[in-house]
Amino acid sequence: MTEFIPPGSAFIDLPTPFPMRRGGALHGARVAYETWGTLDAARGNAVLILTGLSPDAHAAANPGNAAAGWWEAMVGPGGPIDSDCWFVVCINTLGSCKGSTGPASIEPATGEPYRLRFPELSIEDAADAAAAVVRALGIEQLACLIGNSMGGMTALALLLRHPDIARSHINISGAARALPFSIAIRSLQREAIRLDPAWNAGHYDEASYPESGMRMARKLGVITYRSALEWDGRFGRVRLDHSRQEQDRREDEDPFGLEFEVESYLEGHARRFVRRFDPNCYLYLSRCMDWFDLAESAGLPSSSDSDVAAALARIRVSRALAIGVRTDILFPLQQQQQIADGLRAGGSATDFLPLESPQGHDAFLVDIDRFGPGVGGFLAQL
Amino acid sequence: MTEFIPPGSAFIDLPTPFPMRRGGALHGARVAYETWGTLDAARGNAVLILTGLSPDAHAAANPGNAAAGWWEAMVGPGGPIDSDCWFVVCINTLGSCKGSTGPASIEPATGEPYRLRFPELSIEDAADAAAAVVRALGIEQLACLIGNSMGGMTALALLLRHPDIARSHINISGAARALPFSIAIRSLQREAIRLDPAWNAGHYDEASYPESGMRMARKLGVITYRSALEWDGRFGRVRLDHSRQEQDRREDEDPFGLEFEVESYLEGHARRFVRRFDPNCYLYLSRCMDWFDLAESAGLPSSSDSDVAAALARIRVSRALAIGVRTDILFPLQQQQQIADGLRAGGSATDFLPLESPQGHDAFLVDIDRFGPGVGGFLAQL
Repeated sequence: MTEFIPPGSAFIDLPTPFPMRRGGALHGARVAYETWGTLDAARGNAVLILTGLSPDAHAAANPGNAAAGWWEAMVGPGGPIDSDCWFVVCINTLGSCKGSTGPASIEPATGEPYRLRFPELSIEDAADAAAAVVRALGIEQLACLIGNSMGGMTALALLLRHPDIARSHINISGAARALPFSIAIRSLQREAIRLDPAWNAGHYDEASYPESGMRMARKLGVITYRSALEWDGRFGRVRLDHSRQEQDRREDEDPFGLEFEVESYLEGHARRFVRRFDPNCYLYLSRCMDWFDLAESAGLPSSSDSDVAAALARIRVSRALAIGVRTDILFPLQQQQQIADGLRAGGSATDFLPLESPQGHDAFLVDIDRFGPGVGGFLAQL
Repeated sequence: MTEFIPPGSAFIDLPTPFPMRRGGALHGARVAYETWGTLDAARGNAVLILTGLSPDAHAAANPGNAAAGWWEAMVGPGGPIDSDCWFVVCINTLGSCKGSTGPASIEPATGEPYRLRFPELSIEDAADAAAAVVRALGIEQLACLIGNSMGGMTALALLLRHPDIARSHINISGAARALPFSIAIRSLQREAIRLDPAWNAGHYDEASYPESGMRMARKLGVITYRSALEWDGRFGRVRLDHSRQEQDRREDEDPFGLEFEVESYLEGHARRFVRRFDPNCYLYLSRCMDWFDLAESAGLPSSSDSDVAAALARIRVSRALAIGVRTDILFPLQQQQQIADGLRAGGSATDFLPLESPQGHDAFLVDIDRFGPGVGGFLAQL
């Protein structure tokens, strides 16, 4: 139950109590955020970025924190999300462990971390928290709301629940509801954590930590964030150079140990992640994505395609852009097509931009050559 | 280390010692098989089926075992693989726990199960064992060699290493080499088993058994054996009916427990599998697929597309059929296209049959409406 708060974070206190959609309420909760650029006198140039499951609010270097951020090439002066023009805000999602209140945070009533006493988290709660940040910053209406992955879900909930909060919207590799393949993957990731005896029903600490479960969850995540196509070209059947590791003699090796480059790549990702994200927060954020269904959120009777379309059509923005990637297996391209079609049916001037990036769901983080012009071009026309 | 041998199995003793390609040799090893139909006087009507990772040799009901088999609708009198015409043989792969010698079998030298003392297993070893079965049954040349999934790899190795062993070949959802996405999935499945403390470096028993690891491995397998497209239609966002389970009150439930139908489906698959396949055998069979590369098997210098094509072109059969499924993410359709192209380049009259089955890699087990005519039509023209 460790929090990982970037230096230079700012915070907005949420209203107390902050009611949670599935029951319960938070007291003394807060949201961490960072900004780039300057809010103009009319307070009309704000762009809000909602992130995927794991990022913090540090999207890019800024005066408070010179370290490169997770979307460094996208956000900043002259960049596709140009902080010379826009007042850019990025928030750490409610439920995270990177500054905003979540299961790893201290519960005021007990002085102990919430752990599993944290109320059930929904995408709609994260959306309401984002709306509170916008209001607290004195912004009447965002020029643009940008949501990536889970943040794309949160953005749709925000637009539905808080009409007029944004004039335009960019939905990147998002979805209007969770579908069973992604639910299955996330269910297995949660099971890996929960099966680790060190998870201990959420009562782990630094000394006894569910490292194996987190490794498994992260590796499975990385497999589904990228694509087979990318890996064929990137790794092929290349073996690790064991001589570098002073393991010269093949016959001494574990036949089930790391042998292929792709196995070493997953291992590296797991090692970098395991101790840098709180396992309970991971469980809550993972489950809230499964629960998300914009049709249900809109009070419509089913999760049929037509009800999802009807929910999307209730959203009012003047312009919208939905971007997706053909190789994404976690938030497949049809889901961004569905978002574009639904927003257009609601009267928004909407573009759909299917990209040929080989990097799958993660492409928006790495394929800046394709995403930069897509996002930057849309913003430049506002 | 339990074996699961179907009643009515027959056995062929392998030559002793039976050398293994990656080093070591087996002594007193055997292969389990079953048959349907009658070998004709010219011994020219034999069809051999090589299976995927987990099936036994009981492909269908026969006089020795009236229970339905894993390919019941495909094999039998009047079926697509018609036992009124063909003498059909199915073998349990070397390295399995279902009758053929593998890590769960007793090592003659010690009287104990091999466990991890079993020599490293390769697809080529399984191919050589299959060749020994063919010879021992007095069959000079198979009318057709059929391989599914891992069995499609084994079939290619068998054709390359034992020229003239078959006049024709059907490769179903197979591959000429393992690619990094499938290696990554299998690596994670093995890691799940090996991380389970009960695995105990292979020294588990019934009382202390790596059940959690096997559950994870199986669930991940099932996710990759089917397709998102199938699950969207089959499960959507349907919830479990907890009232059936006398868990009426939502507020008492574990937020991370089974809630969606797709989660229950995975759980059911895991429960049925966990205690019915030996974990060490699973590890060996899983790893041998990663290692498989027909170009390397042919002694060619690289695993480039052109070397794989060259290896395939060395195979000599008069007719061939490669079948694949567009929704297969584990053995993607391009791999069956590669097999068809390579065999055709070697002079075989080869058909490529891409199917639109929604069921992914497992389609050959369940989509008999599509696979039956494909396989049956090819055999009828021989």
